[in-house]
Amino acid sequence: MSPIGILKNKESSAGVFESSRIPLGQYIFERLASSGTRTIFGVPGDFNLSLLEHIYNPEVALKGIKWIGTCNELNAAYAADGYSRYTNKIGCLITTLGVGELSALNGIAGAFAEDVKILHIVGVAPSQFYEGRVQNCHNVHHLVPAASDSNFCAPDHRVYHDMVDKRISCSSAFLDDLSSACDEIDTVISDIYRNSKPGYLFVPADYADKLVDARNMEIRPTITLQDVVSGISVNNHKCQELAEYILELMYDSSRPAIIADVLCDRYGLTSSLRELVNQTHVWNFASAMGKSILDESNPGFRGVYNGSESQEQVVTDIQSCDFLLHVGIVRNEMNTGHYSYKFSNYSKIVELHPEYVNFIDTDTGKTRCMTGQYFFKVLDTVKRMVDPTKLHLKYQETAVSEAQETCGPPHSPVTHSYLQTHFPKLLSSGDVFVVDTGSFQFGVRDYRFPSDLKYISQSFYLSIGMALPCALGVGLGMQDYPSDHIISSALVPKNYQPRLILCEGDGAAQMTIQELTSFLRYNVSLDLFIWNNGGYTVERAIKGPNRSYNDIMSWEWTEILRVFGDPKLEKSVSHKVSSTGQMAKLLETFKRANQQNKLVRLVEVILGVMDFPEQLKSMAVACRH
Amino acid sequence: MSPIGILKNKESSAGVFESSRIPLGQYIFERLASSGTRTIFGVPGDFNLSLLEHIYNPEVALKGIKWIGTCNELNAAYAADGYSRYTNKIGCLITTLGVGELSALNGIAGAFAEDVKILHIVGVAPSQFYEGRVQNCHNVHHLVPAASDSNFCAPDHRVYHDMVDKRISCSSAFLDDLSSACDEIDTVISDIYRNSKPGYLFVPADYADKLVDARNMEIRPTITLQDVVSGISVNNHKCQELAEYILELMYDSSRPAIIADVLCDRYGLTSSLRELVNQTHVWNFASAMGKSILDESNPGFRGVYNGSESQEQVVTDIQSCDFLLHVGIVRNEMNTGHYSYKFSNYSKIVELHPEYVNFIDTDTGKTRCMTGQYFFKVLDTVKRMVDPTKLHLKYQETAVSEAQETCGPPHSPVTHSYLQTHFPKLLSSGDVFVVDTGSFQFGVRDYRFPSDLKYISQSFYLSIGMALPCALGVGLGMQDYPSDHIISSALVPKNYQPRLILCEGDGAAQMTIQELTSFLRYNVSLDLFIWNNGGYTVERAIKGPNRSYNDIMSWEWTEILRVFGDPKLEKSVSHKVSSTGQMAKLLETFKRANQQNKLVRLVEVILGVMDFPEQLKSMAVACRH
Repeated sequence: MSPIGILKNKESSAGVFESSRIPLGQYIFERLASSGTRTIFGVPGDFNLSLLEHIYNPEVALKGIKWIGTCNELNAAYAADGYSRYTNKIGCLITTLGVGELSALNGIAGAFAEDVKILHIVGVAPSQFYEGRVQNCHNVHHLVPAASDSNFCAPDHRVYHDMVDKRISCSSAFLDDLSSACDEIDTVISDIYRNSKPGYLFVPADYADKLVDARNMEIRPTITLQDVVSGISVNNHKCQELAEYILELMYDSSRPAIIADVLCDRYGLTSSLRELVNQTHVWNFASAMGKSILDESNPGFRGVYNGSESQEQVVTDIQSCDFLLHVGIVRNEMNTGHYSYKFSNYSKIVELHPEYVNFIDTDTGKTRCMTGQYFFKVLDTVKRMVDPTKLHLKYQETAVSEAQETCGPPHSPVTHSYLQTHFPKLLSSGDVFVVDTGSFQFGVRDYRFPSDLKYISQSFYLSIGMALPCALGVGLGMQDYPSDHIISSALVPKNYQPRLILCEGDGAAQMTIQELTSFLRYNVSLDLFIWNNGGYTVERAIKGPNRSYNDIMSWEWTEILRVFGDPKLEKSVSHKVSSTGQMAKLLETFKRANQQNKLVRLVEVILGVMDFPEQLKSMAVACRH
Repeated sequence: MSPIGILKNKESSAGVFESSRIPLGQYIFERLASSGTRTIFGVPGDFNLSLLEHIYNPEVALKGIKWIGTCNELNAAYAADGYSRYTNKIGCLITTLGVGELSALNGIAGAFAEDVKILHIVGVAPSQFYEGRVQNCHNVHHLVPAASDSNFCAPDHRVYHDMVDKRISCSSAFLDDLSSACDEIDTVISDIYRNSKPGYLFVPADYADKLVDARNMEIRPTITLQDVVSGISVNNHKCQELAEYILELMYDSSRPAIIADVLCDRYGLTSSLRELVNQTHVWNFASAMGKSILDESNPGFRGVYNGSESQEQVVTDIQSCDFLLHVGIVRNEMNTGHYSYKFSNYSKIVELHPEYVNFIDTDTGKTRCMTGQYFFKVLDTVKRMVDPTKLHLKYQETAVSEAQETCGPPHSPVTHSYLQTHFPKLLSSGDVFVVDTGSFQFGVRDYRFPSDLKYISQSFYLSIGMALPCALGVGLGMQDYPSDHIISSALVPKNYQPRLILCEGDGAAQMTIQELTSFLRYNVSLDLFIWNNGGYTVERAIKGPNRSYNDIMSWEWTEILRVFGDPKLEKSVSHKVSSTGQMAKLLETFKRANQQNKLVRLVEVILGVMDFPEQLKSMAVACRH
């Protein structure tokens, strides 16, 4: 028998000897609370119930931990992703062996691809199956049997662990040794912050109640992003030299530029970068995935640079710059306009990466890489040392052509072209704007956002249907950490209640629609726009515009909230809009505070089947094989 | 450049030289048609559109191949699973790289765990990314980047292949070589039939249109289960000796028994086994997973044997037998009553496995294994050689206690105890009965089915929400192969239109509910019973009966078909039932032909939150950790 007893009730562990011993389940949740996570998503299952019980432990509840049950596990993963994207803390989901964890897999892969911090905890079969106390060919439910004759071959209890390990997980632990379990948990949590990628904990069903030594909680009372970042040892002297050199390059330049990329957000550098921009007034750009990191209402913000797929003015502006400070770079097809980034060959480029700095001379094409230089530290030092009086900025102002306000007569159909000019008016500083993969998303790139709007979109992995459950996670993050995304509260109207706005296409919505019920269940305010264009318009733009494979069923979208938990329409209101006149009126109503005082406001907007934004064209061409 | 040209239009390939060359996409679908698959499930995506186009090729369409788009990929996998369980052919789904294939993963794992024949075709990135024609660190969308610095490390284009290979797939091919592609496709299809497990094909987006040599289609015009099975070379003489020996054991016995297990179904032995039973009149049993293989209306059918968890009479009967022919065995927790199978120590056991035969002497505990003896061949030989006159059966008839008809006054609430006696009356010979994982499922084990009812339930892997999309696949299978499941049509009422009946709990239904729309879309008749018991009752039986993690939102179930595509209720009708009086009336109406002539009939049945069948208790105890 294991020397570690089972905590039957609170009293039995009150002895002196066991003072720092708590059940493993309690340790997991207290550790999560200490790292900033308050909401746990997931679905109960046979092998995680003992673990879930610890959420109701008063000491755990006191730390703010709460359970949010989702309709299925993929939605839980998407919600955890949204929670992390909004809070910049770890999004956590709990599933059960096999049936649960595998259902969530695509959500974890998406987080891995887009550097989102998720902890996926899986309740696995009890320890007796690993410790040989049960005949070794025992095939437990939810576990795939061995590929050979499963009547005589033992199943592999780590089969699912081996699928994800190192492929879509930066760190994982199968907690089959209680003596090291707490250390392993702490390591996985640190690794998730350090790498900004998902990690896994596999918890045997009978271990949640077993006692562990909770000493680690005293040694490291918290494990936050800040703790992990500041725990990295840095050569301050070298960092200072480096910052001086970067500043010299900037002072030497007459047209410097800053490009904010997605890792600035993931490593919490948003406010530092905004400060640097405000101090220096240099021109600044965002990458496609870095959109909304910088204050787009700032006149020095020149737009989103997406290589040759950017707006013409953005390309002209960036080509005119002779020094570029490019921070938090992720290079992929979508974030670089299909690898079409191009700077002038007289410009000098400094790339700040999480763990190194690159100096690129575009003239010679030579790159000098300095490792062991962490971008959070370097950026901070640059910001601290910068002397704006040494800058001599001489930008060539280009005439920015104002977008044409095209709306036609009020009975005209709503088009993407109409939305491109009119939808942005809905957005206010302080709002959180979640957009699903789809035709509409491509136009958003060129919106000019208000100063403190947080934009959340899966722009590289592109899994349709992700945004609705993601928005649930965002909304719960907004409940746990209200206004955490607001950098300069002065720019948000007084007493303004930040809104959560979600846009998605009808095909995407059908993928994960059941999760809409959770907004009603957990009182998460939402303004939801569903673009009803009769199917998969992105795919139609690529191939088969009239093929049945791009069709979907026509639904009564405005009736759906009634069915999903609001039969008397006490908490929700739904609208259907098909003309620009109706749309203009609706945007005006929605722009004013939520006077209807409804939790969820759903708007179905009828769009043309083959209507899509200009910006989708290059993507569509690239995808034609 | 590749020497293999692209088929621009049909005319261009009309030359003599290219007479047997067709596009790879066409080959795939013609090969599927030749193996019996007519319905292809899936979701379009950037990397599979070129492949999907070939479904519309007139020659492919002529062979009966059609596309069924599902709301998401997990549902496509479940539907393909159902298609295969019903037709005993290969269920096929097509998804796109990453976002699609990973979403479907749990469905594939379930098929692997339960020996279901699925082909999962994944459209992957075009060949230029493998062939080095593009810079090697090009991160394409849908693909997870390398775990190390993805700005400089190439992504692994086989990362998802490596996750599934050998773990949840018996055979897979990444078709990056056109010269061997047809052979590889044929091998995967043969392997799926041979192993009765899922297999994978990964098709580069640009390869669907490339020409391949289709000669294989002439050499092997079909690859069906029958082809694969009869292609295995067998030593007929040895097989005959073996059959003689088995028959001697049976003749020596006075109380022989036959147990039908799940692999009889998967390898098409159902009618052979039924014939043997009919010839010999020996007592016969089904395993939990083998339920409905035998004719349960036959008086020699003694019930489902599930070890110590079986009904008392079943245990008594099986213990009285002195010879057991156990066919197509799968040993796992759920199929053996938590490994509690126990036979009398005077009985002799012959186990027929797919590739070997075991002789077990329960007295000495010794097992003699004869490899290279295939159960389809052995069973067939036994059936052919059996001489019923040599049998001398002397069974000890036990009084079978008739189940008490408990229904109480008509306003009593519906209970599982009520359903246990009254629900079976709904079922007719010829029907297909699909039951989801959940409390209701445990009671079905002890139903006595009419002779030609096909029962489909995921009884080991137990993924809730699976049954609804699975039933879609079953229904489409019934359209492709009407009455294929009916062994003795004489027992089905004349002109009877077999019904598809689906039962699932509300928690399970919420997981995959969107797929209900596809029954309307594709004209699949369905009688659907939703057990509304306010959440996860199986979990409540294990732990946390009152915990919030076992709660779900309350939905307007009877309004859902209206929203999902039938606004005017032209194709569907929905009922809500809460008393035994209402339920009795409804069962009576439904028992008679579908006079309302509605495609989908949905019944919401209110059950007690903590009401569950007796049979769930031992499972619940086993799961308490």
